[in-house]
Amino acid sequence: MNFASIEQRFERLRSNKIFEGFVIGVIIFSAVVIGVKTYDIPPIVSQIVLVLDWAITLIFLVEITIRFLGDPNKRDFFKKGWNVFDTLIVVVSLIPIEDSEMALIGRLVRIFRVLRMVSIIPELRMLLNSLLKALPQLGYVALMMFIIFYIYAAIGSTFFASVNSALWGDIAISLLTLFRVMTFEDWTDVMYETMKVYPLSWAYFLTFIFLTAFAFLNMVIGIVVSVMESEHKGAAEQQASQNHDELLEVRKELSEIKALLAELHRDRSERE
Amino acid sequence: MNFASIEQRFERLRSNKIFEGFVIGVIIFSAVVIGVKTYDIPPIVSQIVLVLDWAITLIFLVEITIRFLGDPNKRDFFKKGWNVFDTLIVVVSLIPIEDSEMALIGRLVRIFRVLRMVSIIPELRMLLNSLLKALPQLGYVALMMFIIFYIYAAIGSTFFASVNSALWGDIAISLLTLFRVMTFEDWTDVMYETMKVYPLSWAYFLTFIFLTAFAFLNMVIGIVVSVMESEHKGAAEQQASQNHDELLEVRKELSEIKALLAELHRDRSERE
Amino acid sequence: MNFASIEQRFERLRSNKIFEGFVIGVIIFSAVVIGVKTYDIPPIVSQIVLVLDWAITLIFLVEITIRFLGDPNKRDFFKKGWNVFDTLIVVVSLIPIEDSEMALIGRLVRIFRVLRMVSIIPELRMLLNSLLKALPQLGYVALMMFIIFYIYAAIGSTFFASVNSALWGDIAISLLTLFRVMTFEDWTDVMYETMKVYPLSWAYFLTFIFLTAFAFLNMVIGIVVSVMESEHKGAAEQQASQNHDELLEVRKELSEIKALLAELHRDRSERE
Amino acid sequence: MNFASIEQRFERLRSNKIFEGFVIGVIIFSAVVIGVKTYDIPPIVSQIVLVLDWAITLIFLVEITIRFLGDPNKRDFFKKGWNVFDTLIVVVSLIPIEDSEMALIGRLVRIFRVLRMVSIIPELRMLLNSLLKALPQLGYVALMMFIIFYIYAAIGSTFFASVNSALWGDIAISLLTLFRVMTFEDWTDVMYETMKVYPLSWAYFLTFIFLTAFAFLNMVIGIVVSVMESEHKGAAEQQASQNHDELLEVRKELSEIKALLAELHRDRSERE
Repeated sequence: MNFASIEQRFERLRSNKIFEGFVIGVIIFSAVVIGVKTYDIPPIVSQIVLVLDWAITLIFLVEITIRFLGDPNKRDFFKKGWNVFDTLIVVVSLIPIEDSEMALIGRLVRIFRVLRMVSIIPELRMLLNSLLKALPQLGYVALMMFIIFYIYAAIGSTFFASVNSALWGDIAISLLTLFRVMTFEDWTDVMYETMKVYPLSWAYFLTFIFLTAFAFLNMVIGIVVSVMESEHKGAAEQQASQNHDELLEVRKELSEIKALLAELHRDRSERE
Repeated sequence: MNFASIEQRFERLRSNKIFEGFVIGVIIFSAVVIGVKTYDIPPIVSQIVLVLDWAITLIFLVEITIRFLGDPNKRDFFKKGWNVFDTLIVVVSLIPIEDSEMALIGRLVRIFRVLRMVSIIPELRMLLNSLLKALPQLGYVALMMFIIFYIYAAIGSTFFASVNSALWGDIAISLLTLFRVMTFEDWTDVMYETMKVYPLSWAYFLTFIFLTAFAFLNMVIGIVVSVMESEHKGAAEQQASQNHDELLEVRKELSEIKALLAELHRDRSERE
Repeated sequence: MNFASIEQRFERLRSNKIFEGFVIGVIIFSAVVIGVKTYDIPPIVSQIVLVLDWAITLIFLVEITIRFLGDPNKRDFFKKGWNVFDTLIVVVSLIPIEDSEMALIGRLVRIFRVLRMVSIIPELRMLLNSLLKALPQLGYVALMMFIIFYIYAAIGSTFFASVNSALWGDIAISLLTLFRVMTFEDWTDVMYETMKVYPLSWAYFLTFIFLTAFAFLNMVIGIVVSVMESEHKGAAEQQASQNHDELLEVRKELSEIKALLAELHRDRSERE
Repeated sequence: MNFASIEQRFERLRSNKIFEGFVIGVIIFSAVVIGVKTYDIPPIVSQIVLVLDWAITLIFLVEITIRFLGDPNKRDFFKKGWNVFDTLIVVVSLIPIEDSEMALIGRLVRIFRVLRMVSIIPELRMLLNSLLKALPQLGYVALMMFIIFYIYAAIGSTFFASVNSALWGDIAISLLTLFRVMTFEDWTDVMYETMKVYPLSWAYFLTFIFLTAFAFLNMVIGIVVSVMESEHKGAAEQQASQNHDELLEVRKELSEIKALLAELHRDRSERE
């Protein structure tokens, strides 16, 4: 049995529905194991969990190996972001962890195994791609919003730092406080406090809320419109464009009819 | 009087507007009775309510019997979900309740009688169906959102369990806490608490809020777009498609004209 | 000078821009007077306000008389809702108030004078009409939502009345608590309280939030779609329909051409 | 070297990408300096910041001079709002500040330097313009909403001033409280307080929430629809209008054909 046939066998295995279902099952199981670990569990269960953990790592290692060997285009395997992600998750899981610092990273990596769900289910991968595609449209609105936040935070920490340094101490903490105000989270408590010292500070909070709400609204509408435009093209416009092609055909036929008539006319003129 | 004529009589009764109005009235009355029972009422009123309760059950029993006998297609009667629901409500109401456990179920069943409103008013039934039809579209986005929630809950219960075990004790309680954060309900209290131990934990909360808000927004836009597409087809596109049919007619007529002209031309050529 | 000429003069006055502006000015002034009265004011200002109040009432009385006398169709004057509203406001303001009960109503009527702004500015009247037109569409969704609220309130007051009677005492107070939960206002406080007695009650709150949020979302989308449909008709569809008319013209002309050709052909056949 | 060549040189510099990038860099740097000033910094850093501040002012002065000298149309330079804004920021920064009152304005002006980002990046300028363009559409809805707010505030301060003068003392403070209620910020605390004195005051709060939520929803939908309309025109409608032009051409050609046929027919008739 030569190498090519092994590759073909792995490729068939890779696209096998049962194999895919098994891997999804293992990912779900690994998520459950992560969940179980957050409870207070007796030592014996803890031991079982540890064994299961290694078993999952092993299965993932085998799976990624099959996927790699079954790929007819091995050079481009690591050019796909999800393959790199999957391999990284497995490799870091394999590193034996001793000290507590590394142990934490090990635990985090095990949690991120759940993300493998996205890498293996094509519909979720597509969804994520469409989410990421919508991001750049938000670029300038996000910048605008950050400028608004920054100016208000600078004003806030200039005036209100003396009122409550826990909320307005420096510009970073003021940004966090303003984000809180934007989510309407106990924002009146923050306002009433500053209004005791600066009675007109309600104007600061109200203009901030109006500006951010307005900018946010505009952002949402912008996305809705752009999404609709790209989706809607397929319907009425396509039909109209099809009608246009038909009309061009009509005009071509009319030209032919006119040519025929002109010929008829010329014949008659010549005869007379 | 034979059975068929009874069936017809019941069928006529079933589709009678007055009969329908009467049943709706009884359902509203049963809702009022349920409401009255939640108040502190004197024993005499309590007795009356009990009698009314049994009267309502009886009326519902008679009504469902009429509906069943009046159905020309008795085999498929219990294949309709709403018929099963209506019958179940009546049957469980009929069971005499003795111990307190069962009494609770009896009370719940009486409350769910209000849902019979949906089963009897066609517009509400249609509304519910359209709501249910929108659900599968949300499937993958809901899965994506659950993955985000699960990963954040796992991280949260790993790091913050020592800070506040009431909020981050295990993964189930962390999921509830994160849902609370998503609704902006006193989320800063949760954050300020963890920031005392992990000063950078604001990043955890802010990324979570951005991710879920963004995913939610995308979900809403997705539904709006898909609803619009299906609704909008009927307007501009239909007109354009009608124009298309008209254009095909025009082309057919042009072909006929060309054929006529060609014949004229041929006649002349033959003559010369 | 006869009556008809007075009517014409009043009619001209009524549609005079300066007169309209003056009335709007008086309404704004009356709103300011209402605002001033809410402050602690010295007796002398209070006296002035009282005088101004009567002056405003007098101006309104004169204005409504002019509007009535200037109306060429006096019978239908009180068939318009806004005319009735304006007259009522003036008439109730004229009633001399003695006891404190009536004084309260007098104050309320003076506040509602601000609504005369809507009755006098046509754009606001149109806006209100379009708002009212959107209401019936919401009818069945509102009914559905009320059914959800009612069932949850009945369950809530059945189970949680013993936990906190201030929030769940009877069905009316439970409805208010559920509305509070829907606005996410300290809803976790309500939930944590019930979870101490019924640990699974989180399911009650989460399903309620999901159901109402989902129904609300559907309602919003429904309105957006229906508004768009009616607004959008004016654009692409109208153009397509115009094209359709043009196409019918084209077909008519083609029929004429065919008739001409057929005649030519017949002539020739006859000659041969 | 004459003046015109200097102007050209400055104009070239002005539209130079590197120059623009340098100015953006300085603005970002000035924003960072503003941020640094909000922290507790040692005197030496404070000194450096002061020097940097003057350096930034100087660079802005040079930049605005270059932009002015490089403008071929010097008369209209100050007719552009952004140029006036930029110049004002620089001029006020140049005023030496002595007393604390002026120092505060000086600090504020330095914060508003961040807004120069909007004046220099064309995409942000466009975004702001589109935001401002959407404002007038909101005019009447905003007026309607203010009328609702004003009436409720007048009622609120009339009835509830005795309950809690801090929230309902006068009409201005009542407006603020109602804005708080609209954002759902601890609105039940406000309601429960008034319900102790006026048990039916829940109706006041619920109708207010419904009215403002409904008006707000309508406003959002209005903007979405109007934005879509203007954006959407470019697609299906344009195509349909193009088809219309094509159809007019078809009809012109048909007229020509008819004329030709008519001539043919006339010739024949004359001959016979």
